[in-house]
Amino acid sequence: MIWHQQRITLAARPRGFHLITRELLGELRGVERIQVGMLHILIQHTSASLTLNENASPDVRGDFEAWFDAVVPESAPFWTHTLEGPDDMPAHIKASVLGPTLTLPLSAGRPLLGTWQGIYLCEHRDHGGPRSLICTAFGEE
Amino acid sequence: MIWHQQRITLAARPRGFHLITRELLGELRGVERIQVGMLHILIQHTSASLTLNENASPDVRGDFEAWFDAVVPESAPFWTHTLEGPDDMPAHIKASVLGPTLTLPLSAGRPLLGTWQGIYLCEHRDHGGPRSLICTAFGEE
Amino acid sequence: MIWHQQRITLAARPRGFHLITRELLGELRGVERIQVGMLHILIQHTSASLTLNENASPDVRGDFEAWFDAVVPESAPFWTHTLEGPDDMPAHIKASVLGPTLTLPLSAGRPLLGTWQGIYLCEHRDHGGPRSLICTAFGEE
Repeated sequence: MIWHQQRITLAARPRGFHLITRELLGELRGVERIQVGMLHILIQHTSASLTLNENASPDVRGDFEAWFDAVVPESAPFWTHTLEGPDDMPAHIKASVLGPTLTLPLSAGRPLLGTWQGIYLCEHRDHGGPRSLICTAFGEE
Repeated sequence: MIWHQQRITLAARPRGFHLITRELLGELRGVERIQVGMLHILIQHTSASLTLNENASPDVRGDFEAWFDAVVPESAPFWTHTLEGPDDMPAHIKASVLGPTLTLPLSAGRPLLGTWQGIYLCEHRDHGGPRSLICTAFGEE
Repeated sequence: MIWHQQRITLAARPRGFHLITRELLGELRGVERIQVGMLHILIQHTSASLTLNENASPDVRGDFEAWFDAVVPESAPFWTHTLEGPDDMPAHIKASVLGPTLTLPLSAGRPLLGTWQGIYLCEHRDHGGPRSLICTAFGEE
């Protein structure tokens, strides 16, 4: 049984949905030794999130931003937590709707994703800054 | 420590929410030997998802479809990714809102679900076809 | 390798979003011995859920309730599953949108959360009663 836990810091990105599969897997250490196991990723923030979705067309990621902005509008009359700016409270909601973690199966040293699945960093703030991930891989050698 | 990883292919189903607990658990191998552990399920697609919800009334599953269709409408003016049909982009959004994975505790050889909890396959496409799941069970014998 | 599985019952709370980090971690047994591992929490219900979000301002939790009530309204014309009251079907939807589980990395005997991350119990019913959690911690001593 192998355990490997590692912090990865993602550089600041603009508000929106970003495909980070290649960058993330390139920084991970130890995963290639795991024949069967799991990879868990936590984003340690409350205004950014992680999801899996289509890894080909950038249009998809733009449409994610459009839908979330329409359904969690900055202008909603019911926000009371507005001290940190109009993008703050919608960012908290979006972060929980998409969720702060991903758990992926590992097989033969890599995540067993579907052909069209990629890992998205969902940046919900206008100026979110760098984002910290805790990656935990475990399994059998 | 036992690890068991298995691909399960679900037959094509109509668009909507489908209770698959019995079918899924019936196809799993190795889980019954695990005294304490975890079961992880990934759907390897970006337009279908998995969730837990009420396992009794079919009305609940119909109301899920109604709510998701209302909140992620095919007719929204902001979609740009429309080449694959009007149900495609809404399907991507719904898939990420509900999520592509389930992780369930195992005890005495079975998932420790609540009395009313069942596993839903959420099919967001009109003609999604068969769906592929990667099931990973691990724990102590 | 340590496995520790435990049921925790949370006392009934009013409808809304409640910060339970301290109560939950205070009741957990065995986690402090795990140097590297995972903590998984399942809420065994279909009308309450778990999420991570901002652990400081109560305003954030009130705004969560306001947004979810606006987007999953009790008065929607399409509900058919209404026998258990107007708060029931919206509670099922909210529960699946937020999700029934959390999986957190463990390091040096504690969950490796971000500075501002706390664990929320999301109570979606008017009178949900006590809520049962299954907590499974596993890892290396």
